[in-house]
Amino acid sequence: MKLWGGRFAKETDALVEEFNASIPFDKRLYEEDIRGSMAHCRMLANQGIICGDEAEQILAGLAVIKEEMDRGEVEFSLALEDIHMHVEKRLTEKIGPVGGKLHTGRSRNDQVALDMHMYVKKEILETVALIGNLQEALVNLAEDNLDAVMPGYTHLQRAQPVLFAHHLLAYFWMLQRDRERFLDSFGRADWMPLGAGALAGTTFPVDREMVASELGFAKLYENSMDAVSDRDFVLEFLSNSAIMMTHLSRLSEDIIIWNSQEFGFITLDDAFTTGSSIMPQKKNPDVAELVRGKTGRVYGHLMGLLTVLKGLPLAYNKDMQEDKEGLFDTVDTIKICLRLYAAMLRTVEPNKERMYAAVARDFASATDLADYLVRKGLPFREAHAVVGQLVGKCVAENRQLVDLTTEELTEACSHFEDDAKEMLPPEACVEARQSRGGTARSEVEVQIRHAKSLLINENTK
Amino acid sequence: MKLWGGRFAKETDALVEEFNASIPFDKRLYEEDIRGSMAHCRMLANQGIICGDEAEQILAGLAVIKEEMDRGEVEFSLALEDIHMHVEKRLTEKIGPVGGKLHTGRSRNDQVALDMHMYVKKEILETVALIGNLQEALVNLAEDNLDAVMPGYTHLQRAQPVLFAHHLLAYFWMLQRDRERFLDSFGRADWMPLGAGALAGTTFPVDREMVASELGFAKLYENSMDAVSDRDFVLEFLSNSAIMMTHLSRLSEDIIIWNSQEFGFITLDDAFTTGSSIMPQKKNPDVAELVRGKTGRVYGHLMGLLTVLKGLPLAYNKDMQEDKEGLFDTVDTIKICLRLYAAMLRTVEPNKERMYAAVARDFASATDLADYLVRKGLPFREAHAVVGQLVGKCVAENRQLVDLTTEELTEACSHFEDDAKEMLPPEACVEARQSRGGTARSEVEVQIRHAKSLLINENTK
Amino acid sequence: MKLWGGRFAKETDALVEEFNASIPFDKRLYEEDIRGSMAHCRMLANQGIICGDEAEQILAGLAVIKEEMDRGEVEFSLALEDIHMHVEKRLTEKIGPVGGKLHTGRSRNDQVALDMHMYVKKEILETVALIGNLQEALVNLAEDNLDAVMPGYTHLQRAQPVLFAHHLLAYFWMLQRDRERFLDSFGRADWMPLGAGALAGTTFPVDREMVASELGFAKLYENSMDAVSDRDFVLEFLSNSAIMMTHLSRLSEDIIIWNSQEFGFITLDDAFTTGSSIMPQKKNPDVAELVRGKTGRVYGHLMGLLTVLKGLPLAYNKDMQEDKEGLFDTVDTIKICLRLYAAMLRTVEPNKERMYAAVARDFASATDLADYLVRKGLPFREAHAVVGQLVGKCVAENRQLVDLTTEELTEACSHFEDDAKEMLPPEACVEARQSRGGTARSEVEVQIRHAKSLLINENTK
Amino acid sequence: MKLWGGRFAKETDALVEEFNASIPFDKRLYEEDIRGSMAHCRMLANQGIICGDEAEQILAGLAVIKEEMDRGEVEFSLALEDIHMHVEKRLTEKIGPVGGKLHTGRSRNDQVALDMHMYVKKEILETVALIGNLQEALVNLAEDNLDAVMPGYTHLQRAQPVLFAHHLLAYFWMLQRDRERFLDSFGRADWMPLGAGALAGTTFPVDREMVASELGFAKLYENSMDAVSDRDFVLEFLSNSAIMMTHLSRLSEDIIIWNSQEFGFITLDDAFTTGSSIMPQKKNPDVAELVRGKTGRVYGHLMGLLTVLKGLPLAYNKDMQEDKEGLFDTVDTIKICLRLYAAMLRTVEPNKERMYAAVARDFASATDLADYLVRKGLPFREAHAVVGQLVGKCVAENRQLVDLTTEELTEACSHFEDDAKEMLPPEACVEARQSRGGTARSEVEVQIRHAKSLLINENTK
Repeated sequence: MKLWGGRFAKETDALVEEFNASIPFDKRLYEEDIRGSMAHCRMLANQGIICGDEAEQILAGLAVIKEEMDRGEVEFSLALEDIHMHVEKRLTEKIGPVGGKLHTGRSRNDQVALDMHMYVKKEILETVALIGNLQEALVNLAEDNLDAVMPGYTHLQRAQPVLFAHHLLAYFWMLQRDRERFLDSFGRADWMPLGAGALAGTTFPVDREMVASELGFAKLYENSMDAVSDRDFVLEFLSNSAIMMTHLSRLSEDIIIWNSQEFGFITLDDAFTTGSSIMPQKKNPDVAELVRGKTGRVYGHLMGLLTVLKGLPLAYNKDMQEDKEGLFDTVDTIKICLRLYAAMLRTVEPNKERMYAAVARDFASATDLADYLVRKGLPFREAHAVVGQLVGKCVAENRQLVDLTTEELTEACSHFEDDAKEMLPPEACVEARQSRGGTARSEVEVQIRHAKSLLINENTK
Repeated sequence: MKLWGGRFAKETDALVEEFNASIPFDKRLYEEDIRGSMAHCRMLANQGIICGDEAEQILAGLAVIKEEMDRGEVEFSLALEDIHMHVEKRLTEKIGPVGGKLHTGRSRNDQVALDMHMYVKKEILETVALIGNLQEALVNLAEDNLDAVMPGYTHLQRAQPVLFAHHLLAYFWMLQRDRERFLDSFGRADWMPLGAGALAGTTFPVDREMVASELGFAKLYENSMDAVSDRDFVLEFLSNSAIMMTHLSRLSEDIIIWNSQEFGFITLDDAFTTGSSIMPQKKNPDVAELVRGKTGRVYGHLMGLLTVLKGLPLAYNKDMQEDKEGLFDTVDTIKICLRLYAAMLRTVEPNKERMYAAVARDFASATDLADYLVRKGLPFREAHAVVGQLVGKCVAENRQLVDLTTEELTEACSHFEDDAKEMLPPEACVEARQSRGGTARSEVEVQIRHAKSLLINENTK
Repeated sequence: MKLWGGRFAKETDALVEEFNASIPFDKRLYEEDIRGSMAHCRMLANQGIICGDEAEQILAGLAVIKEEMDRGEVEFSLALEDIHMHVEKRLTEKIGPVGGKLHTGRSRNDQVALDMHMYVKKEILETVALIGNLQEALVNLAEDNLDAVMPGYTHLQRAQPVLFAHHLLAYFWMLQRDRERFLDSFGRADWMPLGAGALAGTTFPVDREMVASELGFAKLYENSMDAVSDRDFVLEFLSNSAIMMTHLSRLSEDIIIWNSQEFGFITLDDAFTTGSSIMPQKKNPDVAELVRGKTGRVYGHLMGLLTVLKGLPLAYNKDMQEDKEGLFDTVDTIKICLRLYAAMLRTVEPNKERMYAAVARDFASATDLADYLVRKGLPFREAHAVVGQLVGKCVAENRQLVDLTTEELTEACSHFEDDAKEMLPPEACVEARQSRGGTARSEVEVQIRHAKSLLINENTK
Repeated sequence: MKLWGGRFAKETDALVEEFNASIPFDKRLYEEDIRGSMAHCRMLANQGIICGDEAEQILAGLAVIKEEMDRGEVEFSLALEDIHMHVEKRLTEKIGPVGGKLHTGRSRNDQVALDMHMYVKKEILETVALIGNLQEALVNLAEDNLDAVMPGYTHLQRAQPVLFAHHLLAYFWMLQRDRERFLDSFGRADWMPLGAGALAGTTFPVDREMVASELGFAKLYENSMDAVSDRDFVLEFLSNSAIMMTHLSRLSEDIIIWNSQEFGFITLDDAFTTGSSIMPQKKNPDVAELVRGKTGRVYGHLMGLLTVLKGLPLAYNKDMQEDKEGLFDTVDTIKICLRLYAAMLRTVEPNKERMYAAVARDFASATDLADYLVRKGLPFREAHAVVGQLVGKCVAENRQLVDLTTEELTEACSHFEDDAKEMLPPEACVEARQSRGGTARSEVEVQIRHAKSLLINENTK
């Protein structure tokens, strides 16, 4: 018999029951549900809505149920629909009809909103900590390999030489924004919905501040209809996750490309690669590929919930039950991706010779030659054109810029002097970029110090 | 020890193992996997690649494994990665090293492609049949209520009277296109990939036609790299499902609106509604709401896989493993939605008096008055303007068109005569729309006959 | 001749030129581009990279070009690719080769990043202001109609009576979160990229702090590769817009439903509705419908850019040029939606009698009857069941709760006394919900005061 | 004055007018609109709904308007909302009030549906032809380079040697499915909606078959509400485009990677690459990058329209006006992408020596060594393990498989004999894969013949 069955003449269709039930996935919220119920119960007693003795029975009952669920002893059933009904049913079994008093002054609409807020707040903080770990792994890998020079790419074409450390640290800053974005969203998840009832508030003299304070919420929802209708905090978690996954997918692409035989810039540890059932020589960067692939499901969950919410009238609609599975899967996905990346980066071996070789005989220093001419007084556009023609000449003759003689340079432009060729070695190019945030070693060291201080100062909340 | 471990010096990291493993979801393909292996095995024997005796042992072993899995007796383990490894490992346990011969001439890349094709083909046909059932429920509900007249809406404003049956049948045709779209896609799922090996074909003299014929495939992939890289058939299933969900979401919106107290056009059976934990009077159209909501997850899965495939180089990449969970969830979702809708529609009770009342005193016949003037020789634009002013007058005076006297009509336009008011009753408006596909009863009856013939002729494949 | 053409032997294909060119849309950034160039120029002079006289010529030239573009006098051509090239070309035409010195120490990669940051910052602030206007319209409409009582809905079923004002204010708080979300994102758009060069920094002694300070940026990008690769601030604008559109789409749905003849809760002004080319009586809520529809394009643009960025290696790739059109269209879309909604709400006429009639004879007070029993000592679950049966009885007998006699109540449960029927009038239900954030008039007044204070205090930045 | 203004007391708000107007984009449909109106007019005359003389005036007027629009002489105005109103207004200006008779028996709802169907049908056929051109370019490039051997990749790791032609032809088959998918969708765009009126059919004795036949439609919509509500044919065009863009994005990724200095497998023509404003040596594969990037907008448009349609009640809603811009942009995008790819591929120069070098000293023949052992009687799993250990040994000693002596092979497994080393050259690996659809030259030649025959036979409709 359903708890809401009073006016119904007929049983729910079995397939409907299966379709409606959220217990297969919302059981994951049992801890939040019980903690929330305990706070609600204490408040009810404090306000004299139930008496102290009743509250004690309820609290004791809830504590036991929590332990049973911790131990996985509770069997969940579709007929009881959701985690709220399971807890309440079990409570009544344990302590009798007084258990029915727990639901006074609330509805499942505000109750599930409460559970979801508590859950999202917890997961934001865990995510933030995991991002910090990955940032740390990046900084360490960068710091340990400050001497590695590699080609920097645009359009996957060699552009200018950069420090391997500099390339890695670009990801540090992306993740730093991710971390800030998650923390900003925390403030909007931190609104306490309980007391909104089904949609209009409650006729009981509840103390919403007390519940908020017990559960560590900073704010109350100021409008009961908003409280039960709002899924912004879930959307925001999903969109922050989607943005973060763009970063991890880009890092993955870099790793996969670097790990190809043609680039050969890094070696991944056996523990983070897998083989082939048919090609004995294969050592595949599966972790990076899967992370890149899992970007799809996170985007999909975001699009899914946006779709669900589009055009829903106020207040609660059953469609909103669809907010959970996508969120849970997103949480699991981003956490394992962050964990694996931090672990994998700790084992990455850069092949510094391969990197250097790729940049040593290349046109990556062409810009520096143009800049040289600018410093000699040529407008940049003219300098660019001169060097463009030198590059064209080299390509045609299958030579490199370093192969040009000073005479050839001077012939191309009279501003070239003996020191022009000093611009060409990759180390020189790297060292010349001392603009703030540039790839010169001294600047990268500044960056690393800055990064470390952010990790120390912000990794707490 | 991994089956592919030969060249690896180190064990896979445990978290990597969990991350890589597809067995938690691809076990769902065990039947396809074993059927595919049996066909492969018979072909190997037929071509003399393995001997007949070996093939018999393998086939017998596979048959037993199939039964074990049917009975749920096999324990799946992350260490064995996927369903292919589980079957092969179990086979070797049962029949010894000869089991290792089964994988001759194939790779997991073409094997999983084969499994997925078999699965998608099966699910297309099941979906098509379920669509047919829902179409049938629509036709029956329409036919049983041919006398019900209701307002037809545009912009959720009453526009012109229509038959309730006509409104329902609009969904028949949407679903008809869905059915055709799924059937068209069948042809592109019907390409057989096995024999593509890892990506380049195989060195063994396999007979791909024989495998295709054993498994009921109409065509072969003509290019081995395409065979292992292609996920179009999954994308197409997802996009067909997404389009179908737009239809079910629209039907849901209609049902939810009709079921509101304000419209009150239908009564849903208790078995297909649910109550509230706090408001005893509620009887909520949860099924329709959930179907509308589940549209989100299907859109999301489509977006997810599109994202996965964007920008992947050839041939197989691990990202592609992400093709499965979204597909499986889509299959489950659309099948239960189709089943529930067919069942729910069989119990819908139209409230014909409410429908008629909504259309009887309304401006829904205004177009007919304008058409009347057109038949008297007025250009449509002028007729439209005349009637627009009459409507404006009625709104200002809080009257209806039926309340206007013939004198008032004639005053507005001298072309109005005594018979003008005969245009106004809703039945007259409905009957006047005898254009093919219009809402006149005779036309709707034609439609129903047509619809039924499609159900009879096409529900087989 | 392309400005970058030095090494090229052959002209660009004409179709490629059209395909590559961003000028048809990035001309929109001309103001930002010129302002950014001016700051860059002053800095170059300040650092002695160009001399003061050159800087003055360049600044004067840029000022003239700005005016020409303001007046729409500049013709844009595909051959010049983008806004940067157009400005530079025009500058050289005006002041000769010295114009070519402007590009010293920067690249189009950091230049376009700068333009986009300036643009997004400006649009965030405009959006925030427009949200504030809409919030104000909501508060005003609520305050002007504090006496209107209507049904509150869940599942589009009448649930409990609420104040019309309360329902409206729910949207105030959604928009409040939108406003905060946009403001939070401002901080991440406020990083200054110029000086990153193509990807690695620049060899010139640029002063990035000076440029940032001139242009009002709070922070610098700390890593040059991040600076040219980052499109997070665009993604964040798009996802904030998408979340806001969920809110506007929900408000639209409410408006459309309320505006139906069946609900009849509001009248929209003629100025915000449109008619039909064929049905003279129609008055369609097109604005609300279009806003609901435009949700799709905003979701689409978000999904589009997420897709673009997925899996791109560092640093700049041409794919990133695809960040603009979707952003520009999103900006235009959300701004016109916000403007129209604020204007339309100012003209909405609530039909208070229709609203009240809808709630007067209904079961919307059932919860209050159950709460009454709870206050008499019954556990909530039992009270719920009692009232559920009373509702069932009424439905069967086609009566309302208000029609039940005290005797019938007492018969159903002995705890009912004479005062039970006082719970039933809608006003009583509304007034009983005095929990914080509830729908009681006193609470709604508190809410309005709070809302107004937020508008006053935060509408400045 | 609006054409629908009869009942309105007030002018439309100017911003609303701008917001509602579709003329800025639907003017693109003028040709379809006029052609459709002509067919409608002839039918009206044929049925005696208007007289022959009136029809002649209307047809003559429409012909002139068509020419004016062809020449771009018509000024479009927001006040006239859409292309239908513009044509009708212009017609009335030209031929007087009789022009108002053209709209008899139709509504803008079925009129715009007709225009969109005609447009989509036309664009499907153009797309199909362009796909054919690209397929042809692929076949030609493949055929011209049948001697080029390159590494085949999985996980971007070298896997097994393949013919360059084989790799290219994989895309032929993807595009073949795209072509078929578009052609299948043609059948569902080929339903004629006119005669549906606003939603319910029309009171005039129209002959819908005649209109369909005049305009080349194969079928009629059988239900008038479906006819005006259906946007499936647009969704299907978008999803087919999205799937096709996954293919082009993958081809782009291959091109970009091959074009990197590290791979160096191809040289792109100057006409299809662009340079850098700062790095004179750059030659960027912009076309491939932009195509990959434009995948995002196509996915976005699909997601956008799916969102628009989700949960819309029947029949027409203004939201549906949002079906156009995304479609038009998709049409433009895919057509230019197809055109550019066909042109670019004609100029691609494979660097066969680089390709061969990449595969000559590599482990890509490991599978063949394992297959050798299988043919000697070893179960595949054991053979795989033996070769895996040989690969491990080589990696540790920095050698290749070709460097192993026959003695070393025999030591690893006694089944190795003198002929084992014949398996190792890349050509041998390629030639050994003679399974149907495999990479052996003979099989690739079969593939090319098959491909060509498809191009000849299907490029007509």
